Amino acid sequence: MDFSFRILKNSKDCQARLGILKTPHGTIHTPTFVPVATKGALRGIDLKDAKKFGAEIFMVNTYHFFYQERYKIVKKFGGLHSFLNFHSPLMTDSGGFQVFSLGFGIEHQIGKIGFFPKEKELKERKKGFVKISDDGVEFKEPNSGKKIFLTPEISIKVQENLGADFIFAFDECTSPFHDYQYTKKSIERTHLWAEKCLKVFNKKRKQRMFGIVQGGNFKDLREESALFISSLPFFGIGIGGPMGKNKKEMHQILEWTIPLLDKTRPRHLLGIGEIEDIFEIIERGVDLFDCVLPTRLARHGTVFTQNGKIHLRSFKYLKEKIPIDPECQCFTCKSYSRAYLCHLLREKEVFAIPLLTSHNLFWVLNLLKRIRKSIKEGNFLKFKREFLKKFSR
Amino acid sequence: MDFSFRILKNSKDCQARLGILKTPHGTIHTPTFVPVATKGALRGIDLKDAKKFGAEIFMVNTYHFFYQERYKIVKKFGGLHSFLNFHSPLMTDSGGFQVFSLGFGIEHQIGKIGFFPKEKELKERKKGFVKISDDGVEFKEPNSGKKIFLTPEISIKVQENLGADFIFAFDECTSPFHDYQYTKKSIERTHLWAEKCLKVFNKKRKQRMFGIVQGGNFKDLREESALFISSLPFFGIGIGGPMGKNKKEMHQILEWTIPLLDKTRPRHLLGIGEIEDIFEIIERGVDLFDCVLPTRLARHGTVFTQNGKIHLRSFKYLKEKIPIDPECQCFTCKSYSRAYLCHLLREKEVFAIPLLTSHNLFWVLNLLKRIRKSIKEGNFLKFKREFLKKFSR
Repeated sequence: MDFSFRILKNSKDCQARLGILKTPHGTIHTPTFVPVATKGALRGIDLKDAKKFGAEIFMVNTYHFFYQERYKIVKKFGGLHSFLNFHSPLMTDSGGFQVFSLGFGIEHQIGKIGFFPKEKELKERKKGFVKISDDGVEFKEPNSGKKIFLTPEISIKVQENLGADFIFAFDECTSPFHDYQYTKKSIERTHLWAEKCLKVFNKKRKQRMFGIVQGGNFKDLREESALFISSLPFFGIGIGGPMGKNKKEMHQILEWTIPLLDKTRPRHLLGIGEIEDIFEIIERGVDLFDCVLPTRLARHGTVFTQNGKIHLRSFKYLKEKIPIDPECQCFTCKSYSRAYLCHLLREKEVFAIPLLTSHNLFWVLNLLKRIRKSIKEGNFLKFKREFLKKFSR
Repeated sequence: MDFSFRILKNSKDCQARLGILKTPHGTIHTPTFVPVATKGALRGIDLKDAKKFGAEIFMVNTYHFFYQERYKIVKKFGGLHSFLNFHSPLMTDSGGFQVFSLGFGIEHQIGKIGFFPKEKELKERKKGFVKISDDGVEFKEPNSGKKIFLTPEISIKVQENLGADFIFAFDECTSPFHDYQYTKKSIERTHLWAEKCLKVFNKKRKQRMFGIVQGGNFKDLREESALFISSLPFFGIGIGGPMGKNKKEMHQILEWTIPLLDKTRPRHLLGIGEIEDIFEIIERGVDLFDCVLPTRLARHGTVFTQNGKIHLRSFKYLKEKIPIDPECQCFTCKSYSRAYLCHLLREKEVFAIPLLTSHNLFWVLNLLKRIRKSIKEGNFLKFKREFLKKFSR
C-alpha cells in the first residue's frame, strides 16, 4: 500500500505516541515537526538541506500558488515535487487560512492563539474583505485588489494540481473573538464543506486528505466537530482554527478533541509550534504539526539555544566567540561565532538568513529526534521536565 | 618565502599573462576575479562555497569594518581570517573609495566609468560631505551623521587589525568630472599618502601592500602616477579611480598605465568586472580585479548565460523548464528550472538570492578558468572572439 499509518508505541503516562507514516515519496517518523515552505522554499535554505537535518515532510501553502494562478504552471511541471525538484513527502493546506487571516476586518479577527494584529497590519488587512456563504469565500486580495473566490471544490482542484502527498479539506477558520452562535453556524458550514471536499476528491490520485476539526474554544462544538470529522473517511485529522486566548485554552481544546478522534489515524495540529508548545501538544496526542516560527524567528535574528531563545542582533553578542548553542551540531554552530552572526545581522547582510534559518530548523528537528527517542524509551515526561527547566528558566 | 608572484607565461599577441601569486593562506592563479565579500560575507552564500567554485582570493571592504569600529572586534578575534572562520587569501581596500563615493556632493561625483547617481541617491549623498586635506579625509556618515576622519595612517592601522593578506594604500579617488588642475593636485596628494602608508606599515606583519595609481583620464597624469607608484616598494600595483566616461576611455587608461608598471609585480584593477570588461582588461595586462557585479546582479535577479545576461524576474521565464544556463555545471543549474527561480524571485522568496548568487559566481569563476586555459594554450584572443560573439549577440 502506498499510504499507511501505524502506531508503534503509546505512552503509559500521557497521550504521546510514536508512529510511522508512509507515503509514496518516503516515510515519516511521528511525532514530527513539519517545516513550512510557504512559497515552495525554506526562506533561504534548500529543502534538501532541511531533509538532511531530519525533516521528513514539508508544508507548502496553497494560497501562494493560487492567488496568481501559479498552480497552473506547477501542473505543467507535473506537480510540486517536480516543480521544486524535491521528491520527499509534501503537504498542502487548503488555502483557507490565508484568505481568512489576510482578509479579516475588525469584526473577523483571526489568529492561532489570541492574536491581535498591530495597527498598521490591521489597516492593511481592512483593505481586503471576506464574504462567506455556504458555497465558499469571496475575498479581495489586499495587494492587487483582485477578487478571489475560493470554494471546497476549487481548493481540492488546486491541491490536486499541486500534487502534494497530503492535502487538507477546505474549512472556515473562525476567530477566538467569534461568539458561540457564530461558531456553531460555522462548524456546520465546515462539516458541509468537508463532505463536499471528499465528494470531489479523485480517489485514484496518489494523495490522501486530512479533514479539519473546528469549533473555537467551545467544548461541545469541538466535541461535535471531532466526532463528525472523525466519522468521515479522511486519511488523517487536522485540528484547526483558533486555539483559544492563551496556552491553557489551547491545551483544553486538545484535551476535548483528541480523545474523540479515531486512534488509528494521524493527527495534525495546524500552525502551532513554540518550543514549549511542542511538548504540550505531543503530550496530548498530536502526531504532526507545522509552524513557520523557526524560520520566521531566524529571519528576524532570534535563535534557539538550550537555555532559551536569544535575539542575536543585540549589541552584546558582537563580543561573544562561542557559537549560538555550544551543544548544537549544525553547520552554523560548528562554523561561526555569535559575534560574526551578530555582525551580519547588524549589517543587514543576507547571508545571516540562511545561517540562522538552518540553525533553527536543525535545532528543532534535533529536539524532535530526542522527543521520539524519549517516547520510545518511555520517559517523555521526564525529558520534557528536564528540557524545559533549562529552556524556560 | 611567504609571499611571491611569478609570471608563468606572457601572451605573444597581447598583454595577457599567466601568473602564480603565493600567500601564507594559499595560492592564487592569475588572471583572476576577486569576489567582493563587502561585510565579510558573500551576499547569501558561504565563502567556502565560492572557494569550491574556484575563487582563490576575496576582497573585504575596510569601510564597513571601520565606520562603526567593528575592526576592534575583529582584532580581538585575531583578524578577519579568524572572525570569518575562513583561512584563504583575503584583501582589504583602503576604505577611501566608500568615503568618497558615499560622501560626494554635486561637485564631487564619483564613479568607476562615467557613473551618474540617480536623483534620490544623490539627495541621500548630499547629506554626507567630504573635506579633503593633505592629512586625510573628513566625512559625515550619511546614516548616523557621525563625523569620520580617515587618514593614510588610520587606514593602514585598521587594515593591519583586519589582517588580510593584501592591503591597499590610502588614495584619493577623483571623479571623471574633475578637471585636469584638480586631478593633478590630487595625484600629488595620493603620492604623498602612498609614501605615508609605506612609512607606517609594519613590515614584520604577514601582509603585503598594493599602491594605487590614479590620474583620472589624463594621459600624462596616469603616466606620472604609474611611474611614481611603481618606483615605491609596494608588493603589487593597484589601478584605481575613475576609469573614464566610457569603455573606450577605460581601455586607453589601461594602455597608458600598464606598460609603465614593473612587470614583476601583480596588477590589480579596482572595481571593474562586466563580462566584456574581463576580456579587455586581461588583454591589457591586468592580473587581478574585484567587482561586486556578479553578486549585485544576482540579488536583483539578473544572471549570466553563455548567450548573455537575462533578467530572470520576467514573467516569460515562469514557463521555462530549462536551467539558467544549460551548459553550466553549478548547483543551481543542475537543480532548478528557470521557472522555479522566476517564481521565487517574483514571490520575493529570499532563497532566490543564494541560488542566483552562487550561479553567477560559479559562472564567472568558470569563465576565468577557461581564460587562464586559453592563455596557457596561446589562444586567448581567439577564445575572447568566440565567447563574446555568443555572449554579446
